[in-house]
Amino acid sequence: MNERLEAIKGNIIYAETPGELTVMPDSWIVTEGGIIRGIFSELPERYAAAEVTDYGDMIITPSFTDLHLHAPQYPMLGLGMDLELLGWLNKYAFPTEAMFSDAGYARRVYSKLAHALIERGTTRVCIFSSLHREATNILMDELEKAGVTGYAGKVNMDRNGSEELIETTEESVAETRLFIEENKGRKLIKPILTPRFTPSCTNELMEELGKIAAEYPDIPVQSHLSENTDEMKWVKELHPDCAQYWETYDKYGLWKNRTVMAHCVYSDERERAAIKKAGVWAVHCPDSNTCIASGIAPVRTMLKEGVKVAMGSDIAGGAKLSMLDVATEAIRVSKMRWLFGGKRDEERFLTVAEAFYLITGAGQEYFGARPGFGIGDRLHAVVFDDRGMADNPRMNLSERLERIIYLGERQDIKAVYSEGIRRI
Amino acid sequence: MNERLEAIKGNIIYAETPGELTVMPDSWIVTEGGIIRGIFSELPERYAAAEVTDYGDMIITPSFTDLHLHAPQYPMLGLGMDLELLGWLNKYAFPTEAMFSDAGYARRVYSKLAHALIERGTTRVCIFSSLHREATNILMDELEKAGVTGYAGKVNMDRNGSEELIETTEESVAETRLFIEENKGRKLIKPILTPRFTPSCTNELMEELGKIAAEYPDIPVQSHLSENTDEMKWVKELHPDCAQYWETYDKYGLWKNRTVMAHCVYSDERERAAIKKAGVWAVHCPDSNTCIASGIAPVRTMLKEGVKVAMGSDIAGGAKLSMLDVATEAIRVSKMRWLFGGKRDEERFLTVAEAFYLITGAGQEYFGARPGFGIGDRLHAVVFDDRGMADNPRMNLSERLERIIYLGERQDIKAVYSEGIRRI
Repeated sequence: MNERLEAIKGNIIYAETPGELTVMPDSWIVTEGGIIRGIFSELPERYAAAEVTDYGDMIITPSFTDLHLHAPQYPMLGLGMDLELLGWLNKYAFPTEAMFSDAGYARRVYSKLAHALIERGTTRVCIFSSLHREATNILMDELEKAGVTGYAGKVNMDRNGSEELIETTEESVAETRLFIEENKGRKLIKPILTPRFTPSCTNELMEELGKIAAEYPDIPVQSHLSENTDEMKWVKELHPDCAQYWETYDKYGLWKNRTVMAHCVYSDERERAAIKKAGVWAVHCPDSNTCIASGIAPVRTMLKEGVKVAMGSDIAGGAKLSMLDVATEAIRVSKMRWLFGGKRDEERFLTVAEAFYLITGAGQEYFGARPGFGIGDRLHAVVFDDRGMADNPRMNLSERLERIIYLGERQDIKAVYSEGIRRI
Repeated sequence: MNERLEAIKGNIIYAETPGELTVMPDSWIVTEGGIIRGIFSELPERYAAAEVTDYGDMIITPSFTDLHLHAPQYPMLGLGMDLELLGWLNKYAFPTEAMFSDAGYARRVYSKLAHALIERGTTRVCIFSSLHREATNILMDELEKAGVTGYAGKVNMDRNGSEELIETTEESVAETRLFIEENKGRKLIKPILTPRFTPSCTNELMEELGKIAAEYPDIPVQSHLSENTDEMKWVKELHPDCAQYWETYDKYGLWKNRTVMAHCVYSDERERAAIKKAGVWAVHCPDSNTCIASGIAPVRTMLKEGVKVAMGSDIAGGAKLSMLDVATEAIRVSKMRWLFGGKRDEERFLTVAEAFYLITGAGQEYFGARPGFGIGDRLHAVVFDDRGMADNPRMNLSERLERIIYLGERQDIKAVYSEGIRRI
């Protein structure tokens, strides 16, 4: 065990709740074996022996969480954006995912993706793989090697795929069980059940996945919900017995505490109440919802209602891997919803500080850590060097953070810590 | 005069009209003294002596044009985004612009901005300075040094500024005349008349600017139009005699061929007809219109009606300097307008190829060049090396361009040519 006493120093900024920034100029985070012991404006005497990394005037924030993305769509990032969801799946997503039957290709792409995540300050993910078990194991290896933590899932899809991307119900169940057994002992990336979405899974498969979910109560579930109006009509045709989309998951025991549901663009009051009641997490993927023209999720309303919301890049429906970009896209679309949603008084657009919380604190909570820098949690942090940006003597620290959120690129990230270890 | 015969080789892509890409794999652009002599799939015998730069499998496109941006707002890029136009002007824009009374500060910031433009492939601009003549001259020096061409204007504002950012009518007129005389002989960056917007200029000032416009018929005009509903109400109060915003410019002789009007978010059929009739150019600034929550301009409709439209970053209302980012934001907001504008059949969202035209060909036409690579025009080009992006063996050349438009960053730009000279 690494029990080294360490201290990092800089301008520390975090958000424990949506919209409220804590700003600690020129302060210290002390860790012991990677675990946070405290934040201090002066280094306490008892930690005088700590190994110090002084980041000077740089800004230190919690690292980012990405609660919804598709690893095998990384090669098609930024492609197919003239299409909408269902056409885009058939023309781009399925053929691209099919390439991951090739383990060598998977290794090349996933190694690059894992580093791309860490380089952009994302240290915790809920990630979809393809249906290929071998490629999923490779994805988990590469994420762990790079220091990315969280959950990864082998996708289940036994209907409505393509000739090259489909599995039988039996294969899907057997491979999922094997996938869980092979990976349940991992330290950094854990398995998660991943029915692609209702149209991709027969009722028989859903039933079997429900059984697996019951057998492994610690393994959460991730899927998609109410993303696009055509998709929702299709789900309704497939499950005429369910009043709403979420019930197609609930029916099979997949709608439970810590289930992760991407999008929820069209989740109405009743569906949102079901999300809240079950302890399900809604994942807002603003760039994806814009790029494939799905709509704008009612994030302001979800926050008011106390629905748990975090944020996802949803590559490659979304075209941006960096959660800083995803945060600013969330602000952008919230302004569009404010202008065009017909509820200007109730649905004020997101502030920069709120979006910052949604890419940091919200996801930290999902992964069992305290939003911000919680004592007893392992250090997950990003250090920003904003000296490459234009010279502006009038800015305070929260304005500097605001500018970093809008403009920050890979090269402005000086260091990234994941699970207490510096990875960059 | 540089009469060198040169040839660059690579995959050439350009758009001569909105939405139609010309793709020439593995082809040659030949220039003589920086002037394009032709594009060829094989190098013709008569050019065998050309000095060749072979970019291999890279992609060569026309460089970008940015028809609306505020140089002295560069230090506040990404700041103040929780505000709307008029509050944002007072709290952020005016205090930041006031700093440009300091020539040393102007030199530092403008040198950085000029290089930032070239590094992102922007070689032609219509740019606002502040009201300071000295800083405007410095801006023009720095743009020319870096190789950025086009127009720059000393801003006029003799009312509704701030204590630190205002000029008298007499000062404004005298300084503008001096500014023109000092700069009219420049080769790369020419002067342009720049009344900030109607609320910033008294009628007396507008009248004097109209006289100057008549005296110097080759000097165009740039300003703002119908950006924000509060702003439009204000203009209406200031000019009760004008039925529409554009008439406040027309009244003083500033509404003429090649006048550049930023935004036009709320320009209705009548205002758009006036734009078209006069030969005015509408500049679509999607990121600014989103970030300061102004609205979404009816670009699809303008294109259908034959209104001249090009694109602007409008930093720092917009948070993105790269025209690639501005192009994708234009696509994003067009999808929002398609979803929420109530005219799904008439206002189909922009395709990637249309947005590409708007940041290349449209602006080339404004500056008197042919969209694409016109024979007889000076070479303005960007060379992209997309090998840093994820490995995807299934892409064709137009898909590679699409991905570059969505993901391209500074480091993916291998070379930039402006006025026939390689600048990067």
